[in-house]
Amino acid sequence: MQEKTFTHGCFITLEGIEGAGKSSLVEALCQLCKERGLSAVSVREPGGTAIAEQIRSILKTKQEEKLTSEAELLLMYAARAQLVNTVIRPALAQGKVVICDRHDLSTRAYQGGGRGFSLETIAKVRSVALGDFKPDLTLLIDVPPELGLKRAALREALTGVEVNDRFESEKLSFFERVRSEYLKAYHEDSKVYARSMLLIDGTMSMSEVRELALNAVRELLDRRLSFLEGGRA
Amino acid sequence: MQEKTFTHGCFITLEGIEGAGKSSLVEALCQLCKERGLSAVSVREPGGTAIAEQIRSILKTKQEEKLTSEAELLLMYAARAQLVNTVIRPALAQGKVVICDRHDLSTRAYQGGGRGFSLETIAKVRSVALGDFKPDLTLLIDVPPELGLKRAALREALTGVEVNDRFESEKLSFFERVRSEYLKAYHEDSKVYARSMLLIDGTMSMSEVRELALNAVRELLDRRLSFLEGGRA
Repeated sequence: MQEKTFTHGCFITLEGIEGAGKSSLVEALCQLCKERGLSAVSVREPGGTAIAEQIRSILKTKQEEKLTSEAELLLMYAARAQLVNTVIRPALAQGKVVICDRHDLSTRAYQGGGRGFSLETIAKVRSVALGDFKPDLTLLIDVPPELGLKRAALREALTGVEVNDRFESEKLSFFERVRSEYLKAYHEDSKVYARSMLLIDGTMSMSEVRELALNAVRELLDRRLSFLEGGRA
Repeated sequence: MQEKTFTHGCFITLEGIEGAGKSSLVEALCQLCKERGLSAVSVREPGGTAIAEQIRSILKTKQEEKLTSEAELLLMYAARAQLVNTVIRPALAQGKVVICDRHDLSTRAYQGGGRGFSLETIAKVRSVALGDFKPDLTLLIDVPPELGLKRAALREALTGVEVNDRFESEKLSFFERVRSEYLKAYHEDSKVYARSMLLIDGTMSMSEVRELALNAVRELLDRRLSFLEGGRA
């Protein structure tokens, strides 16, 4: 099949708390792009480049010294700036579809809702790190924290890999604040004309979740391709 | 000798380009504090805590992947927020003198003057990282970049340690921009009533530089101690 190229790619992000089922969607979305003859790149945050993965390790590993909330926020945006400028922007400029497991909305949810930073504070750092760069589509997979954490623990037990993750060891109340900030962002987005978020109930079966996610991405790609073909005609 | 304690300590920073002679002053300043019966803590930036040193390593080590300027700026403030909140503020609250080899002015000089970030952009990140926290006294040791870099190279040759430092491998013109931003900050400071900077000509002999630095710190400590004793009388 002939490869199609957008003049500018599509940036799709997956958001939600631990155990929402984000990671298992990445492969399905990449597959869909391939079937459409589009080139896809998948990345995760924090991380996705050699340097951003070094920053991820500081962010995620439990250490004797407590990472301050200010340093956590700044490290998140340092990793994001590195990934966006090194990988995501160049891929979009080449017309590729970029699928990102977590992105900027995670910071609003975790450092905003979870740690208590105001939206104004986060916006200051974002403007320096990213300017006005933002996703074309965000899929928010919503699950109650009890379920999400149970799934994350199960995954850990199944893989036999002890995660020792700073975030996963937070209390339930932390994830409740994270979840409600995610939902707040969704309700704000649902009121604007150019909506960019889809809320998916992550308590449904995996195949139902996948179908909803695939449909949304299919629709986005169709709109983009028909716009381009219309422009060329 | 009985240890004196300030109700709030003194925060003294050393600034200047590579090879200005900052590091060799730290020991002399700590010694002065001890002679005065004051407890002193010395730290360096970026770094000074286990986590901040991990961030330093990302900032200083040359890697195949280029560290973007945005990530560099954010990492600098992540390390600084971690050091200030974990080490410096607690030490000052205990009435100690903190001597810091490089601090916030380095970011104005290197990421502002050197990399081209505006003062407004830097101020946004600083406000999130540090609030209005600032030094009581900054000693700026000024040397022409040719001399500073020659001294840094000599030190490397003498110690036999290859530095492989991202910053030290910048071009001369980079350090000229850094130096002139340092001097611009000094000239701005010299116009305000509550001056907080001293400019020292780093081309003088090491003992002359040390004498000027020690005098300035002596004066600051005297002022603080006499104020406290006046308050107690």
